[in-house]
Parts: sequence; C-alpha cells; structure tokens
Amino acid sequence: MPHLVILYTPQLDKETDMDVLCRSLANTMLAARDESGEAVFPPSGTRVLAFPAAHFAVADDGSAGRAVGGTGDYAFVYLQLRVADGRTSATHTQVGDALLQTTQTHFANIFDKRHIGITLQIDEGLPVYDGKYSNLHPLFTKA
Amino acid sequence: MPHLVILYTPQLDKETDMDVLCRSLANTMLAARDESGEAVFPPSGTRVLAFPAAHFAVADDGSAGRAVGGTGDYAFVYLQLRVADGRTSATHTQVGDALLQTTQTHFANIFDKRHIGITLQIDEGLPVYDGKYSNLHPLFTKA
Amino acid sequence: MPHLVILYTPQLDKETDMDVLCRSLANTMLAARDESGEAVFPPSGTRVLAFPAAHFAVADDGSAGRAVGGTGDYAFVYLQLRVADGRTSATHTQVGDALLQTTQTHFANIFDKRHIGITLQIDEGLPVYDGKYSNLHPLFTKA
Repeated sequence: MPHLVILYTPQLDKETDMDVLCRSLANTMLAARDESGEAVFPPSGTRVLAFPAAHFAVADDGSAGRAVGGTGDYAFVYLQLRVADGRTSATHTQVGDALLQTTQTHFANIFDKRHIGITLQIDEGLPVYDGKYSNLHPLFTKA
Repeated sequence: MPHLVILYTPQLDKETDMDVLCRSLANTMLAARDESGEAVFPPSGTRVLAFPAAHFAVADDGSAGRAVGGTGDYAFVYLQLRVADGRTSATHTQVGDALLQTTQTHFANIFDKRHIGITLQIDEGLPVYDGKYSNLHPLFTKA
Repeated sequence: MPHLVILYTPQLDKETDMDVLCRSLANTMLAARDESGEAVFPPSGTRVLAFPAAHFAVADDGSAGRAVGGTGDYAFVYLQLRVADGRTSATHTQVGDALLQTTQTHFANIFDKRHIGITLQIDEGLPVYDGKYSNLHPLFTKA
C-alpha cells in the first residue's frame, strides 16, 4: 500500500507541470523491481498526490539568495513515500534513488534558474489498523 | 489528541460532499466507546481535516479501467487517524472498523459507478514534544 | 532536515495572516540554539508549509460553543515539526516551547474572540531512505 505525498511551495505551479511529475513518479514506482525481479509495488496501490502549500516560509528572508544574484524566492519540494514494512534495505535504496532521479530530471530546467531544495524520504508505516475498500485491485489481479 | 486527515483525489469533490463525510467521521469518533464503555476520544480533541490533491496519479494510465468499460479515471481516498499511544488493539480495531464502515457507507453510491480505492490507517503517534493551547477543552469538561 | 507542516481549518484565513505565522515560525526555528550554543537547525533546511483544509469537522456540531455564547464554529491548527533523530530531549522541549509560544502570540487576538484549538507536536523521523537535491545548501555554507 505505497503512496507518495508531495508537499511543495506553490510558486512552482507556474514554473512546471506537477501533473507530469505525479505521473512520472507513478511510472517509476510501477517499474520498480526487487532483487528477484518481482514488482515492488502493486499497480492498484500506487498513488501519488501533490499538495501546494497555501502559505510558506523557507530558510531566511531571501537575503542569502539575493546576495548571489537570485530573487530571494526559494522553492521547496518534499516527497514522502510511505510503504508497508518488510522490504529490504536494498529495495528501499533502489526505489528511493529511482524516484529522486525522476524528480531531479523533472526539475532539471528549473534547477538552473532558481533556488530550490528537494527532499525525498521513504517511511515504513506501522499502522495499528489497516483497512481497505477498493474496486481497483481486481483490475490488476490476473485470473 | 486524535485527528483524522483525509487526502483524496479532487474529482471526488464533484461527485460527493466531503463536508458530510467529515462530519460523519467525527460523529463516529465521538460515538466510539472502549471495552469499559468510556468514550475513546474527547470531543474537543476530535478533528477531521480533508485535503483534495491539486495534482495526482493513481495506478496505471487508465488502460486497465478502460479495458473493463470504465473511464480510466481512478479515485483514491486515504484516511489517516493519528491517536495517542496506550489504547488496546481491540479499541484500534473497533474504531478502525467503525470509521471504515462510515466511509464505505458514504461512498456506496459512487463505488458502484466508478473506480475508487479507499485506505484507512490508524497510527499511534509518539511525539517527542506535545504542546496544546485551546479554549475548546473547557467546553467539554464537566465541572 | 526539519520541516514544519501546518494543517488548519480554513476559516482562519479570513481572520489572520498565515504567511506571517509561517515566517514567524521559520524565524523561531532559525533562532533556536542547543545547550552548546549551536544552531539547532540549518537555514537551508528550515521549511514551513501551511495547508488549509478544504473540508473539516471539529468536535461536536457546535452545540457546546453556542451554549456559551459562541458561534459554534470551531477552529483548529495542527503544527507538526519533523526533525531528524539524535537531538536531546532538552532541545526538543526548548524548540517546541518556543514554537508554541510564537504560535500563541500570533493567535492571541483571535484566541479571545473565537473557539480554537492549537496542537503542536514534534516527531523524530526515521526514514529508511533520505535523499536530497538542493542548491539552497551552498547559500548558507560558509567557506
């Protein structure tokens, strides 16, 4: 039951297409294979949701950015993937690296033009209750 | 200090009233009783907050859904209840089942008409700092 | 890699300036010093992001608030600071108290006029993957 939540500063919506990033990240998750060649994540459980902040403050008041010729407007993207426990450390690293690479590629043009920080973390969830109700799973379950 | 955060795909706002879902879930939390008949959650601490994603990607590109006559537009609802630690496993199960039932009932009409996945998880928070400031608590504290 | 996420009920956007709160909280984080006088958080890693809920339900249906002369419209602000592990309990307490004080000061006028609950928690993240890509860090790294 993986899901990837993206929290980001809203000026980025004018500079890049976050729908495209969501789909690219979902595709990266769908393509992930573990050491034995098995899909890491089930298709029906692959979800990417992105939320622009309505209000934000990043780092200083912009002084450091303006001092080097920037606008002082900093962007930030936080990507948090929650996965069920039980996967190997190697799988975590591989998935994390692949998602970070997809993210870097997406923001490559922006990265050269503005100040931006990107952080991607994977957390293992250990819920004390875990319930599902879905008509998506049957779509991806082979008979 | 329970709170329930709902992250969901935004097309659902055109198909159902999420305000109603929030109130139904809050009422379910308020009605929850533990093994000894005590309220599981304090009224002043019962909060449900719902956030539609601005951008999202769910499962595949819609192929699997269209292949079975759907639109290929998948919806997803993630409900995460954070509770303080110390409650029993039986209480977690009872609360989770009740909230999932309320959610299923709310989406029953939609469930027959579209592809949708619903996941509800309860996490025990173990904060290293926990501070409060409220004028709600006195409203619900009997003299 | 601290970040502070604020989830809140949206009526507050008409009553206070959440941009100001975000900057005040970022400044509080930037000013935090540990027992040895070192900055607790790096400037480039200080991020505050605020998200008004689109839908919500808090406590009861407003009866308790109206019974004491209020409007029955409850506000709620949840502030969650995620920090890397390894800091002392004393540092957590000091940072939490400072952030809660900043928050209380910000909402002081509102607090006397409406029902509102504020909760601030600090969580230690223990990610199984932690990746970064940033051109902010060099801005704040002394040569």
